[in-house]
Amino acid sequence: MTDLIPNVLAERYASPEMCDIWSGEGKVRLEREFWVAVMKAQKDLGLSIPDGVIEDYEKVIGQVNLDSIRQREAVTRHDVKARIEEFCDLAGHEHIHKGMTSRDLTENVEQLQVYRSLLLIRERAVTTLIRMGELAEKTKDQIITARTHNVAAQPTTLGKRVAMFAQELLLGIERLDSLIERYPVRGLKGAVGTQLDQLTLFAGDTDKVAEVEKRIVAHLGIQTCLQNVGQVYPRSVDFDAVSSLVQLASGPGSFCRTLRLMAGNETASEGFAKGQVGSSAMPHKMNSRSCERVNGFHTLLKGYLGMAEGLAGDQWNEGDVSCSVVRRVMLPDAFFAMDGLLETFLTILNQFGWFEAVIDRENQHYFPFLATTTLMMKAVGKGAGREEAHEAIKEHAVATVLDLRNGVIQKNNLGERLADDGRLGLSLEEIQQVFQHADQLIGGAKSQIALLQEQIQVWQHKFPAAAAYAPGNIL
Amino acid sequence: MTDLIPNVLAERYASPEMCDIWSGEGKVRLEREFWVAVMKAQKDLGLSIPDGVIEDYEKVIGQVNLDSIRQREAVTRHDVKARIEEFCDLAGHEHIHKGMTSRDLTENVEQLQVYRSLLLIRERAVTTLIRMGELAEKTKDQIITARTHNVAAQPTTLGKRVAMFAQELLLGIERLDSLIERYPVRGLKGAVGTQLDQLTLFAGDTDKVAEVEKRIVAHLGIQTCLQNVGQVYPRSVDFDAVSSLVQLASGPGSFCRTLRLMAGNETASEGFAKGQVGSSAMPHKMNSRSCERVNGFHTLLKGYLGMAEGLAGDQWNEGDVSCSVVRRVMLPDAFFAMDGLLETFLTILNQFGWFEAVIDRENQHYFPFLATTTLMMKAVGKGAGREEAHEAIKEHAVATVLDLRNGVIQKNNLGERLADDGRLGLSLEEIQQVFQHADQLIGGAKSQIALLQEQIQVWQHKFPAAAAYAPGNIL
Amino acid sequence: MTDLIPNVLAERYASPEMCDIWSGEGKVRLEREFWVAVMKAQKDLGLSIPDGVIEDYEKVIGQVNLDSIRQREAVTRHDVKARIEEFCDLAGHEHIHKGMTSRDLTENVEQLQVYRSLLLIRERAVTTLIRMGELAEKTKDQIITARTHNVAAQPTTLGKRVAMFAQELLLGIERLDSLIERYPVRGLKGAVGTQLDQLTLFAGDTDKVAEVEKRIVAHLGIQTCLQNVGQVYPRSVDFDAVSSLVQLASGPGSFCRTLRLMAGNETASEGFAKGQVGSSAMPHKMNSRSCERVNGFHTLLKGYLGMAEGLAGDQWNEGDVSCSVVRRVMLPDAFFAMDGLLETFLTILNQFGWFEAVIDRENQHYFPFLATTTLMMKAVGKGAGREEAHEAIKEHAVATVLDLRNGVIQKNNLGERLADDGRLGLSLEEIQQVFQHADQLIGGAKSQIALLQEQIQVWQHKFPAAAAYAPGNIL
Amino acid sequence: MTDLIPNVLAERYASPEMCDIWSGEGKVRLEREFWVAVMKAQKDLGLSIPDGVIEDYEKVIGQVNLDSIRQREAVTRHDVKARIEEFCDLAGHEHIHKGMTSRDLTENVEQLQVYRSLLLIRERAVTTLIRMGELAEKTKDQIITARTHNVAAQPTTLGKRVAMFAQELLLGIERLDSLIERYPVRGLKGAVGTQLDQLTLFAGDTDKVAEVEKRIVAHLGIQTCLQNVGQVYPRSVDFDAVSSLVQLASGPGSFCRTLRLMAGNETASEGFAKGQVGSSAMPHKMNSRSCERVNGFHTLLKGYLGMAEGLAGDQWNEGDVSCSVVRRVMLPDAFFAMDGLLETFLTILNQFGWFEAVIDRENQHYFPFLATTTLMMKAVGKGAGREEAHEAIKEHAVATVLDLRNGVIQKNNLGERLADDGRLGLSLEEIQQVFQHADQLIGGAKSQIALLQEQIQVWQHKFPAAAAYAPGNIL
Repeated sequence: MTDLIPNVLAERYASPEMCDIWSGEGKVRLEREFWVAVMKAQKDLGLSIPDGVIEDYEKVIGQVNLDSIRQREAVTRHDVKARIEEFCDLAGHEHIHKGMTSRDLTENVEQLQVYRSLLLIRERAVTTLIRMGELAEKTKDQIITARTHNVAAQPTTLGKRVAMFAQELLLGIERLDSLIERYPVRGLKGAVGTQLDQLTLFAGDTDKVAEVEKRIVAHLGIQTCLQNVGQVYPRSVDFDAVSSLVQLASGPGSFCRTLRLMAGNETASEGFAKGQVGSSAMPHKMNSRSCERVNGFHTLLKGYLGMAEGLAGDQWNEGDVSCSVVRRVMLPDAFFAMDGLLETFLTILNQFGWFEAVIDRENQHYFPFLATTTLMMKAVGKGAGREEAHEAIKEHAVATVLDLRNGVIQKNNLGERLADDGRLGLSLEEIQQVFQHADQLIGGAKSQIALLQEQIQVWQHKFPAAAAYAPGNIL
Repeated sequence: MTDLIPNVLAERYASPEMCDIWSGEGKVRLEREFWVAVMKAQKDLGLSIPDGVIEDYEKVIGQVNLDSIRQREAVTRHDVKARIEEFCDLAGHEHIHKGMTSRDLTENVEQLQVYRSLLLIRERAVTTLIRMGELAEKTKDQIITARTHNVAAQPTTLGKRVAMFAQELLLGIERLDSLIERYPVRGLKGAVGTQLDQLTLFAGDTDKVAEVEKRIVAHLGIQTCLQNVGQVYPRSVDFDAVSSLVQLASGPGSFCRTLRLMAGNETASEGFAKGQVGSSAMPHKMNSRSCERVNGFHTLLKGYLGMAEGLAGDQWNEGDVSCSVVRRVMLPDAFFAMDGLLETFLTILNQFGWFEAVIDRENQHYFPFLATTTLMMKAVGKGAGREEAHEAIKEHAVATVLDLRNGVIQKNNLGERLADDGRLGLSLEEIQQVFQHADQLIGGAKSQIALLQEQIQVWQHKFPAAAAYAPGNIL
Repeated sequence: MTDLIPNVLAERYASPEMCDIWSGEGKVRLEREFWVAVMKAQKDLGLSIPDGVIEDYEKVIGQVNLDSIRQREAVTRHDVKARIEEFCDLAGHEHIHKGMTSRDLTENVEQLQVYRSLLLIRERAVTTLIRMGELAEKTKDQIITARTHNVAAQPTTLGKRVAMFAQELLLGIERLDSLIERYPVRGLKGAVGTQLDQLTLFAGDTDKVAEVEKRIVAHLGIQTCLQNVGQVYPRSVDFDAVSSLVQLASGPGSFCRTLRLMAGNETASEGFAKGQVGSSAMPHKMNSRSCERVNGFHTLLKGYLGMAEGLAGDQWNEGDVSCSVVRRVMLPDAFFAMDGLLETFLTILNQFGWFEAVIDRENQHYFPFLATTTLMMKAVGKGAGREEAHEAIKEHAVATVLDLRNGVIQKNNLGERLADDGRLGLSLEEIQQVFQHADQLIGGAKSQIALLQEQIQVWQHKFPAAAAYAPGNIL
Repeated sequence: MTDLIPNVLAERYASPEMCDIWSGEGKVRLEREFWVAVMKAQKDLGLSIPDGVIEDYEKVIGQVNLDSIRQREAVTRHDVKARIEEFCDLAGHEHIHKGMTSRDLTENVEQLQVYRSLLLIRERAVTTLIRMGELAEKTKDQIITARTHNVAAQPTTLGKRVAMFAQELLLGIERLDSLIERYPVRGLKGAVGTQLDQLTLFAGDTDKVAEVEKRIVAHLGIQTCLQNVGQVYPRSVDFDAVSSLVQLASGPGSFCRTLRLMAGNETASEGFAKGQVGSSAMPHKMNSRSCERVNGFHTLLKGYLGMAEGLAGDQWNEGDVSCSVVRRVMLPDAFFAMDGLLETFLTILNQFGWFEAVIDRENQHYFPFLATTTLMMKAVGKGAGREEAHEAIKEHAVATVLDLRNGVIQKNNLGERLADDGRLGLSLEEIQQVFQHADQLIGGAKSQIALLQEQIQVWQHKFPAAAAYAPGNIL
């Protein structure tokens, strides 16, 4: 086909590692490896398979010709049959798929794809967490004006803001990790889950059938095997997987939304390098394109979760395949989107920067308002009456904010006004000292970051390779 | 108001225990207990609170007057302020809420409501699991025709079918349990998460502030306390909670969908008691109303999850309250729906019954087709050629199914046809013996159920009170 | 019950008119009016109903005692039967519900509730549109810095920004209006849609049955009656209704999100009145609580749409009631949320204000960058080389933005820099004239607003009462 | 790339017509046609474009080389710029894109893709409606047992059942049609919606700019042009489009779900041809794979709607591109899924069949219960007491249903029992006449179908080509 329509998420955003798991060729290889593992176990347990046969199959595992398979499917109108025939013709034998139904193949291999994708995402998420930890460290002394309702509320530090979103990411990693620990695979269960065909193959020998399945599950590398299933594994397992992605994306999502807000105030930027500016015509215009993309990926993930939801709790009897077309689309696309999200977000973290001078201007603009409580305590400490001090501060604060908004003044001069008011008994110097010691108003911001770093250490030790990963170039 | 519009889910479906957690009065009590716990910790750590004050507050915790609070809110236009005033007026002091912002109160108390709801749901889910295990045991010998694509596929047992859905429920319980283990509470973090106000209260003594928070978290009974938050805890924690409900409902959901199918074939019913029939006019019409309701509750839960999704990853800076009205509705309603679902489903399990005679008729109708593989092996064992035997069986099976569907015959007579065909060399007696020993075609159905029971035991031991719970009467 | 849990959306946010449609008492009245309308039609068409009977029913329509009905339901376990008995006991006759099934009552009455709610929402939406038009008019001359990617892009006017969101609202109104025009009611169709019972009642007289139905539909005031239904009307009609609400809320949603952004820059506020400020302690902190709430309502609506989606395309045969509990919750709650959204949004529009001085500062900060294209054309017009002019402007723009972000300068002095550069040949005066005539850079902003006003006029004429509506006080 | 990952929905399910609209090459062609249309209008209105230039562009419209464009994008990192350069290099000029921003191109072309997709879907939906009408006609005399709650309720006809779902499809078509009538395009509005750049190009001549836009919109073939937009058109327009697909799919969805139920009872099948059976080994096993697929497509569509929802009401200022990656995936995939759904459903309609003998058996099994009301009226007519008759019927009906379910009897013999009971005074002959005249119990089923056919006629006349369309072969 000259005009094949590509999968946009795979083509533009996902990493090669993730594409490899879900590519047509990759899947055919996984299936063939699975068939070979089944044959080996069956032969070991006594099923008659001539010597050399398994080796012949093994030799051709890598010879994947999707066109040939597609042509076979057009004839048989059965996708698994087409792939059986292709593999057997290549090997010159007919020994695979014994005592198996299509679902014994496809369910397990698809679960393997999901499982390996979860492992990959966990690794990338730990890299992301490490990068966020580094950024929090680098920015821990930069005091900023924290906002609630998008309005200045109290001082904090930029590092603490980063740590806050890292904390959310960390919760997502814990959830994902717990899923991986629990993740259960279907195993060789036959057409309706009773293992009838494997039992027939082994003349009713339950132990042998159990041993074959145990070896197959070991081949897959998954810890847990389900005991009671029908034709399919419960679709709520897919829901668990996709919902863990939606959750994992939340920390990055909130970080990016906040960075888009900061870019609007010119306090920080996703595209920052020494002297970097927007286009030559519009040097001030540094668009948060990548942050917007991260938020977009999250919206996609929520859509894929909607699809997974549609399948959960909708099984008819021992299984139907109203889920088939849904899973064929949703599973790869959800993982492509998540992978693309992390690739994009890692790039943002690498290129993140902040503008100290602009932040300082913002701080100077708001800190006088934020520091009024401290000033009042000082005034009372020096002998002013509490009520009178409160009244004085209130009057001047209101007047100042109105003058600022009405353009009467350009710079917050609340300090000067308070110094001039005898009711407080504070000199301008004393007042400005409070304003300049905003670091006394950031509470436990720094010690909290330190606590986060300890938690990050734990994950870094668990996944020692994660720290070194760097994302590819993004579009 | 004479015509107050009630919360339908609470009024019609949820259990009293769940309603208690989320009622207006219940929440006021939880808040007051929280304030008292904070005061106790603050006093212990050295904050000056006169003797007797805390006791005065404790005495009036139970005096909840929602109307009075509502009137105060209409004046202050601030809900927390209204509740502070009410509590203080009742106690005759003004010592609560020191160094706290509204969110220090509401976030923690709402998390407590969520946490207690999760505990309650886990308990109920274990009851449900136990009931399903009992039903699987009771029905483990009843052979039925398993279906895939809603069409007869292979024999299984009714118990195995129940076990299959119990397995899915069990996965949901594991997920919920892992969430409860990990569930993190926000703690006393102040307006933007830096604990500034508590630190100010304790003159910057980090250890004392940490100790106060530790005691408060102990009061709540939650294991983990977040370190890095803003004004609010991450909303993806709510998403985790609600998505665990959607997953938990999946096993019951699939069970009920399948029971609706079985009711359509008159093989089983949700409303079964000795001699029970539908209405007198329509005795055959035993509607699966409760099963439909369970499926309906699941649809509701998925909608509430959509709301939780809308909040995840949408935090602006240190927090905004675009989540406020959403959480006010979504959290209680999601738990009411889940609770109602389990109440309804427990009732279904209690009243579930099956119609042996109808099941047998169905088995007799389909088993000849399902047993053809076994017959062929028998024929070959007795000397028939494999190809010839296959051909013969195929011819007769096709003829039989067409005659059945065209009304030429009323009863599946494939056995007779095969006995009459010399190519197979099997007597009618030999053939019917195969048909009658359908129990040899159910594979490992029974041993699989036994494996499930072992897993159920584990949960039963963990939650010893769960076995005794019985749902209230449902509408 | 002393501790009834209220419906939060109805209690806190929805208008009395909407609550009236969905209250328990209101629904009972609608049902009774429906039964009376059926009786009248049946009697007119020849069914024997003694004189005086209908009048006796009519007299007691308003005597609604929900407790009594609830007690009957506890006995009959059938909600419609309970309401039939109550009405008949009050009237002292047994003539209602002839030839009707429960669904003949409930489907039509619920559709009436939906229809009246849609009418109410349309009216409110037109009020909202009118208010937005007025605001656009009032602000049409206020030049602001338009943003894309949340970064300054080109000048526009505040009125144009308002008009942009009004345009989206208008599209939503058109969609809603088209739904109302098409909205089809189920009619009296009997248990499976074949009208068997009504036909039996009228001895198979198709014309009479058609006439009865026609009169009933006229009573409801709905234009279209479905011909081919089962027990229920298609649930995708509910989906149509709720999705029209989600769409309608989009214009207000985007407006409010943008106002939250503007509040963050102090250019505008939802809570504006002469001299109005935030709390006395924090006079600068004017939180966008109502805007956040509007965004929250939209999130709720999307969740309710998820519920409606779950029902669309999920009908089994002539109908099942897996939709029952879903619709009981989703329909009223979706309308309460939409109604609350519009009440809140109307309040925001009434209290909206902008800060000219702050807007001007922002304009002065960005306009030099935004006006560079015009300056270049001027320079070229006065004889400068295009390439050279471009190069000069680029150099100075980049230098200026870097100096601003690095705190080297506090005010954008690009104009001065360009005036000093001989390559352009422009005087500072000429340059500043361009900056001051930002109104020449707003393109067709004003004429576009005028086009909007024409469209608003059309709706205002269609709904003459809408202009006068004022929302109640919001919490 | 040897291992490109294809778009599964396009590759396996969508029709060539739909793929053509959304293919990479197709889009490049649409963009080039758009640029040419803009140039023509600009030239006509007086912009200086040398003769021959437009012709040179037109000549190379079809020379689409996606690889070359991709290489350019890797350099420019701007997708539109890459496509401008490619087109200009091919034509040997630089005259396109004058006074346009990227969005002036992409928004309009993407809307054109959406609009053409909507037109295509409407055409296919009308074909589907016609096919359903034909099927309803063909099956209008086949009496079946209608079910509510999946349990036998009253007789109806198979044609009426089809008509019921056709009615729902028809409502979906009306909704889609109304959207197409209202569908508004953005037009040439510039960077923030004020048309500044086109106005600058035409020296502020509003009329000329309006005329250019008018011609462009005419080129697109869309009726309505928005007046007040920002950088983008309102994303709730996409929501409107995708939600119309979800609604349109509801009729087919319910039909398919019901056909899966019927297949489970062997009353009908999606894969029916003379003598057609399942696989040779399992001739009874005719799986409803295509119906399951239709339900799966609907689940996908609901997920894509979730993505569209995420964008509605989430615009920041004059626009941001957090929607970009979402729309790049959601829009084509939603239309591919809808198109694949209709292709599959048309195939189902073509191959649909029903099994008269099995249906008759089901009717005989249930009709005695369903006819009891008629029998009672007969008995009373012949002199039996109403209460006594009711009691007699009730007794025998209950006994019969219990005997059937307990296997005491194989065939419903309620008729015989009633004939033997003197209280009714009815002979077996009289009773069986009632049973055999089930056609007297189908109410207005047939006349309702006739009403549907009239409505279908209207659409058939509007879209005369629709009747002839036949779907391609499906996998």
